Amino acid sequence: MATTNSAGRPRLADRRRPGETAQEEILDAAAELFTTYGFASTSTRKIAEAVGVRQATLYHYFATKDDILETLLGTSVAPTLEAAQQIRTASASPAAQLHAMVTYDGTQLWTGRWNIGALYLLPELRTERFRPFVRMRETLRSTYRDVARDVLDLLAAAGKENLPDADEDIPLRFVETLVNLRWDDAGHDDEPQRTADAVIRALGWGGDWEALHAESTALLRSLRGNNARA
Amino acid sequence: MATTNSAGRPRLADRRRPGETAQEEILDAAAELFTTYGFASTSTRKIAEAVGVRQATLYHYFATKDDILETLLGTSVAPTLEAAQQIRTASASPAAQLHAMVTYDGTQLWTGRWNIGALYLLPELRTERFRPFVRMRETLRSTYRDVARDVLDLLAAAGKENLPDADEDIPLRFVETLVNLRWDDAGHDDEPQRTADAVIRALGWGGDWEALHAESTALLRSLRGNNARA
Repeated sequence: MATTNSAGRPRLADRRRPGETAQEEILDAAAELFTTYGFASTSTRKIAEAVGVRQATLYHYFATKDDILETLLGTSVAPTLEAAQQIRTASASPAAQLHAMVTYDGTQLWTGRWNIGALYLLPELRTERFRPFVRMRETLRSTYRDVARDVLDLLAAAGKENLPDADEDIPLRFVETLVNLRWDDAGHDDEPQRTADAVIRALGWGGDWEALHAESTALLRSLRGNNARA
Repeated sequence: MATTNSAGRPRLADRRRPGETAQEEILDAAAELFTTYGFASTSTRKIAEAVGVRQATLYHYFATKDDILETLLGTSVAPTLEAAQQIRTASASPAAQLHAMVTYDGTQLWTGRWNIGALYLLPELRTERFRPFVRMRETLRSTYRDVARDVLDLLAAAGKENLPDADEDIPLRFVETLVNLRWDDAGHDDEPQRTADAVIRALGWGGDWEALHAESTALLRSLRGNNARA
């Protein structure tokens, strides 16, 4: 059922979809529909209607609904992974690196137009089709684990007891709770920074918070093409 | 497509479904299908087939698929809420209460036969139909917030700096990451206890861990009808 973009046509979003191209508009509409009605319940026909393009136009950009989902997931993790890897090689303390990573990642999850992270637990992602996305997220997890390990090693070397065993998976686990917090309509504006603070503290770190925040902020500012509001 | 429970009929789960009654078997099959293939992608026909009962039998217990989901969600949160409220009135330190709550809740999420918590972000739960479940989870959130507030107040009274602002939502947020950790096939056997430790530390608590663990364990043992492996 092809539709034109004529006035009066009911649109899901209040304002014109962001995006310079039809492709970006399709991704925006799909993100809204997937997060609002579910992936399985959304057809490519509904996506095309929500953008106001013919289904043939949609198929020109994406052969299948899975392709749309994969692109959406990629745009949600790829920039964070790139930033995390840049942060990892910066000359800053491990605690500041970790704080900056969580703040950057958290800001993407918290301020993105749609709550894409709510799609991370879709059963569909268990299939071979989505292996590249799963692998990318695993790489992000490893990066978090590496820097968390550095923070813990420094604490141990400084004789700070960090018993009981702090877990290297705390950073990834905790930053992704921003997805649930958005779903619940809870939380504060500065939730990404608060989350970074909570991660650092959960690892047993207890130094000068003001200096840590300054170092983390400087690190985020130095990122090339940084989208995070640090 | 009515099926009998005859030998050789393909079953989804390896072993006979747990449950004394057809109703419990239906819930078990639905939990497996919803978490494996998605809620929208699972029909009541498929659930009946997976149990080996007629669809008419299923409808005898549950009028709709939504009813099945609601019951499943209820069984995942109701015991935890009851335990949390019992723990809240016990004579124990706030830190031990919080540790016990997270351990109990975490154990349900971590050891339940299916990862029911993966259904908490379903868009379907936003409808009026699931308001009672959402309200029950909100009550659990409030209970967590109250005890977290007590922990933070005691730390403040003891002159422990708990800057930057620790967040009262840390307990619920963090315990629910066990859902994601299960989904990712990551984590340790003792993850519920580790999670409780991480929550306590993220709030800025830094006392005698051995005493805290002993108090938390005693609290869990004292619970009537306690299912948690404390």
